[in-house]
Amino acid sequence: MRSHETNGRAIHAGMISPAATSKGAATRDIILERAYMIAASAGLEGLSIGPLADAVGMSKSGVFAHFGSREDLQLAVLDMAATRFGEHTLVPALRVQRGLPRLKAILGNWFEWLRRDRGGCVLLTAVSEYDDRPGPLRERVVAHHQRWQAELARAVQLAVEAGELRPDTDAAQFAFELNSIALAVQHDAALSDLDAAFARGHRMFGHLLEHYLSRNA
Amino acid sequence: MRSHETNGRAIHAGMISPAATSKGAATRDIILERAYMIAASAGLEGLSIGPLADAVGMSKSGVFAHFGSREDLQLAVLDMAATRFGEHTLVPALRVQRGLPRLKAILGNWFEWLRRDRGGCVLLTAVSEYDDRPGPLRERVVAHHQRWQAELARAVQLAVEAGELRPDTDAAQFAFELNSIALAVQHDAALSDLDAAFARGHRMFGHLLEHYLSRNA
Repeated sequence: MRSHETNGRAIHAGMISPAATSKGAATRDIILERAYMIAASAGLEGLSIGPLADAVGMSKSGVFAHFGSREDLQLAVLDMAATRFGEHTLVPALRVQRGLPRLKAILGNWFEWLRRDRGGCVLLTAVSEYDDRPGPLRERVVAHHQRWQAELARAVQLAVEAGELRPDTDAAQFAFELNSIALAVQHDAALSDLDAAFARGHRMFGHLLEHYLSRNA
Repeated sequence: MRSHETNGRAIHAGMISPAATSKGAATRDIILERAYMIAASAGLEGLSIGPLADAVGMSKSGVFAHFGSREDLQLAVLDMAATRFGEHTLVPALRVQRGLPRLKAILGNWFEWLRRDRGGCVLLTAVSEYDDRPGPLRERVVAHHQRWQAELARAVQLAVEAGELRPDTDAAQFAFELNSIALAVQHDAALSDLDAAFARGHRMFGHLLEHYLSRNA
């Protein structure tokens, strides 16, 4: 299925291609937006250049001028998904007071992201698509996951420093637990009622917080 | 892709077909086993009768004699996955003392199931495959999930009755939280080290237990 091998600089492919003019960048955005929509329902492995070119009214070579290979395109869509996820969950929470308020804001934004992305999440699907396929895509999936876990751990650590969470809090462990809440909410929401899943997720956060809350807070 | 419509009695298709002799049943098992292997890596939507027939050295009509339609086959594979999951997680735990010991046994068996199924879990993949596709497959996925949540809630309730967990324990909520542990372990294990994910999962169980443990225990 793979038409070209990756050049190892996938994320910059658009920037270094001859198409990186203003008009070229706009065309690249249109292709990427459509590819993101396809990947949201069919996964990154559901992307192929031919049908995508048809969908945006271009030739296959026109698409290849913007993305050197199918894999470059998949990597760009994955990065776009990670950027959007961060813009919806973390970025607005950075305006909220650091510590517990920010941690709660991240979780709330995350739930809203799950509501928006109910039809399918490129990032989550990618985890199961590449769990047994070594290569640049798997490496990128792992990198995005690690970065997100580190962002969560940082938000937890700020709550420790604010004296709200126990000084012996293992921030990486709590980050794992926050991720587990979102996974369970996403899983339940896929099968039943979204708001009921949100309520379960919030209660679960409260139960975990009982362990982590500082005795002095 | 669908060659035949479902007859609404998918789960019994093998039993009522003319092939339901002893030899017929053995052939059906061989087809099902191979279909399960395909679905474990490609999902239930990755199943199609043609390649499956080739893989087991039969004609397409030979496969259709055992499974009336592609959907019947997919339902049978889904049921097989749920049965195997129960046989690995719940059934051995029923020999363990009811209450907390049994709850811990279920979780431990579940982790071992995740180790075994690292290449892909038919049940988990099916949740994302059918979250936005109404029909008999989605209904069966929901039914299996509800049944599993009910089994977990029952194991929790037995620990409440044994006086080990708080009398006001919401068994369905704790079942949701147990599911979330397994989802996070599976997610982390797909991306990094399995035993590290198990350790995080066990610690998380301990943190949740702090909320649920009876003050008298």
